[in-house]
Amino acid sequence: MTTNELSLDASLLLQQIRELGAVGLDSTAGGRTRIALTDADQAGRDLLVRWMRELNLTVRIDQIGNILGTLPAASGSDAAPLMMGSHIDTVRNAGALDGCYGVLAGLAVVRAYRQAGVQPQRPIVVAAFTNEEGVRYQPDMMGSLVYAGGLDLQTALDTVGTDGTRLGDELARIGYAGDMAPGALVPHEYLELHIEQGPVLEAENTLIGVVDSLQGIAWQRVTIQGVANHAGTTPTRLRHDAGYAAAACIAFLRERVVGAAPDTTLATVGSLRFEPDVINVIPRKATFTVDLRDPDEQRLQAAERRFADFLVALAEREGVQITTEPLVRFEPVVFDAGLADRIEAAAVRRGLSHRRMTSGAGHDAQMIARIAPSAMIFVPSRGGISHNPREHTDDHQLVLGAEVLLDVVQDCLRTR
Amino acid sequence: MTTNELSLDASLLLQQIRELGAVGLDSTAGGRTRIALTDADQAGRDLLVRWMRELNLTVRIDQIGNILGTLPAASGSDAAPLMMGSHIDTVRNAGALDGCYGVLAGLAVVRAYRQAGVQPQRPIVVAAFTNEEGVRYQPDMMGSLVYAGGLDLQTALDTVGTDGTRLGDELARIGYAGDMAPGALVPHEYLELHIEQGPVLEAENTLIGVVDSLQGIAWQRVTIQGVANHAGTTPTRLRHDAGYAAAACIAFLRERVVGAAPDTTLATVGSLRFEPDVINVIPRKATFTVDLRDPDEQRLQAAERRFADFLVALAEREGVQITTEPLVRFEPVVFDAGLADRIEAAAVRRGLSHRRMTSGAGHDAQMIARIAPSAMIFVPSRGGISHNPREHTDDHQLVLGAEVLLDVVQDCLRTR
Repeated sequence: MTTNELSLDASLLLQQIRELGAVGLDSTAGGRTRIALTDADQAGRDLLVRWMRELNLTVRIDQIGNILGTLPAASGSDAAPLMMGSHIDTVRNAGALDGCYGVLAGLAVVRAYRQAGVQPQRPIVVAAFTNEEGVRYQPDMMGSLVYAGGLDLQTALDTVGTDGTRLGDELARIGYAGDMAPGALVPHEYLELHIEQGPVLEAENTLIGVVDSLQGIAWQRVTIQGVANHAGTTPTRLRHDAGYAAAACIAFLRERVVGAAPDTTLATVGSLRFEPDVINVIPRKATFTVDLRDPDEQRLQAAERRFADFLVALAEREGVQITTEPLVRFEPVVFDAGLADRIEAAAVRRGLSHRRMTSGAGHDAQMIARIAPSAMIFVPSRGGISHNPREHTDDHQLVLGAEVLLDVVQDCLRTR
Repeated sequence: MTTNELSLDASLLLQQIRELGAVGLDSTAGGRTRIALTDADQAGRDLLVRWMRELNLTVRIDQIGNILGTLPAASGSDAAPLMMGSHIDTVRNAGALDGCYGVLAGLAVVRAYRQAGVQPQRPIVVAAFTNEEGVRYQPDMMGSLVYAGGLDLQTALDTVGTDGTRLGDELARIGYAGDMAPGALVPHEYLELHIEQGPVLEAENTLIGVVDSLQGIAWQRVTIQGVANHAGTTPTRLRHDAGYAAAACIAFLRERVVGAAPDTTLATVGSLRFEPDVINVIPRKATFTVDLRDPDEQRLQAAERRFADFLVALAEREGVQITTEPLVRFEPVVFDAGLADRIEAAAVRRGLSHRRMTSGAGHDAQMIARIAPSAMIFVPSRGGISHNPREHTDDHQLVLGAEVLLDVVQDCLRTR
């Protein structure tokens, strides 16, 4: 078996990453901003579509704006395609790699076929899904969610953004309201190459993450209503301190919820506000978010339950009212074992250090996994930093990840 | 001994409280705003001075703008005066009682002498001190602090406000830059009647607070610098979570600092901010204030030390950097025992429920205590609410407090 009959144009891949990364550049500090369905997103899409056409791919846009470029199979076979994908929208002041790397590596794989004059046994599709980041329109991963049938198209189009705009109107405005039905091309398998966005691979000097699962996520907003009072005149026994109650929650999450499953459960309180937020006034109100994650649904539910029980006891003990609002809830995703094995085998053949891992972040792959066997490949993120202009992966690591992707694609198309 | 040879004009006192409370009325929600040295403060001062002149008091303004109205002694004695005082500046959207009650009750006491045609053995001074609230110019209690020699006059006049104005310029602008040297009249004793601004008297159905001490106050700002990272991809062991560290501080303050002296130490974190304050990003930075109080200096220092030691251990444990900035530090004040006894005796004679207590809030009395025996009288605050339009004390409670003040004044002037 020769694994490397096709070869990747590494320098063109890196050049395209830089070129797409220059679209929507911020005026300060080296970041770029291509929030979904803005003018900058349109410019990024236009560039991607141009590159797809340069490879003679069949470009289709679906009704939620997902872009699909297809390399036809030998003999025009309409067998279920192999799909690679990710997204090219960004957060505000983003790095150049998140999402874009996976889409452009998919193009590089297709380019390897084109440049060798080889036609695959089945079609190969490169997909760029709409609004993965969810900055302006909620929920995130929207394009792949609609594609997989998890969200009604009309509901998605009617989404109103943080700026009051309707998603469907903005999609039409930038010229990406296509006519293909989302999900019309059901892939035979789906592969997503992505930067880790976490510190694990770098910390362990490992090059390839074989991502065989994706954490479940539970987001909620907690509001604690206490009583504002003078910091100097209110005895502790008469206080109903919303700020202290919030702090007790954060400490409980770390010490007792994460503490119960320290290797898998993650808990983060990223946002917290006090009212009135004055030095000598006991907070009347505290509002904070809770981000709970675990790759195991039973453990995630146990974490949620443990926290909910604590809130009941805390409200009673401190004489405060506590309300919670669920924001996001995704069950963990177990990726396809066969695909993960193929990724691992490719890393082994190339002699690359690798490890099985769970994805801590959400990705389009978790949505497409609803309709096709899916798995992901991670490469290291320096310092675990992402969603930030300092997001970085070494060029040679980017190339190695894309070569593993190429190997796995060839492997899938050869043997199935 | 007849305690009531003089009698208070209760209805005029209540009317003046309402009339002064109508100066600087806010357009919404029933509050008033007379921040020190604004036009509204000037209007309040003008009204007070008019009322002083109607009582034929000798009105003097000192160089920091304190207003002193003197009822001369019989035979023109220039013995050290008895002084009653408080302030008439307010916070934003304030109640009508904080400060004003003490000043106008002082006028009511003087009026009782005038109406009975009785001249006191020593002069009686009613004082309204400048900028007690410290909203625009720091520090608060500034007029009484300068009067007591605790702050240099020129430094105070050169204070720049939150709006960029210079205090001395604003004082001149509103016509209250007097020529008397602050502290020129050193009182023989100082009495301040005030609403409690706390819930203790109401909670215990007690009418009169005999205030024999005032808590020490230590304010600091704490800044915790951690590392922002992705909530889903960063293992707990690799986190440097500034938000969790802040929560651990708040929990420690309640559970271990207050817990070490639950009857006297108070700890409040009223203000807290996370950066970047995003649901799925581990906070890079947390900034919060700490308000520590205790009526005993040794215990207050122990609380400060205990918290400082915790910060050192926490920084080490969580891998975060912690810096603290002292904002305010006042030692506890022990008021004059003899004056407190006289207040208690007056309450007993009138059959009013009473209790010894410490003042949780700062007051001008703590400054004047540096130069003269001082004590305070508290009346209940409904719900402990103050600095708010809902600040309330029942009329009959206001009158009883003023009558106790009148009794104590007569007692002091009779026996010393």
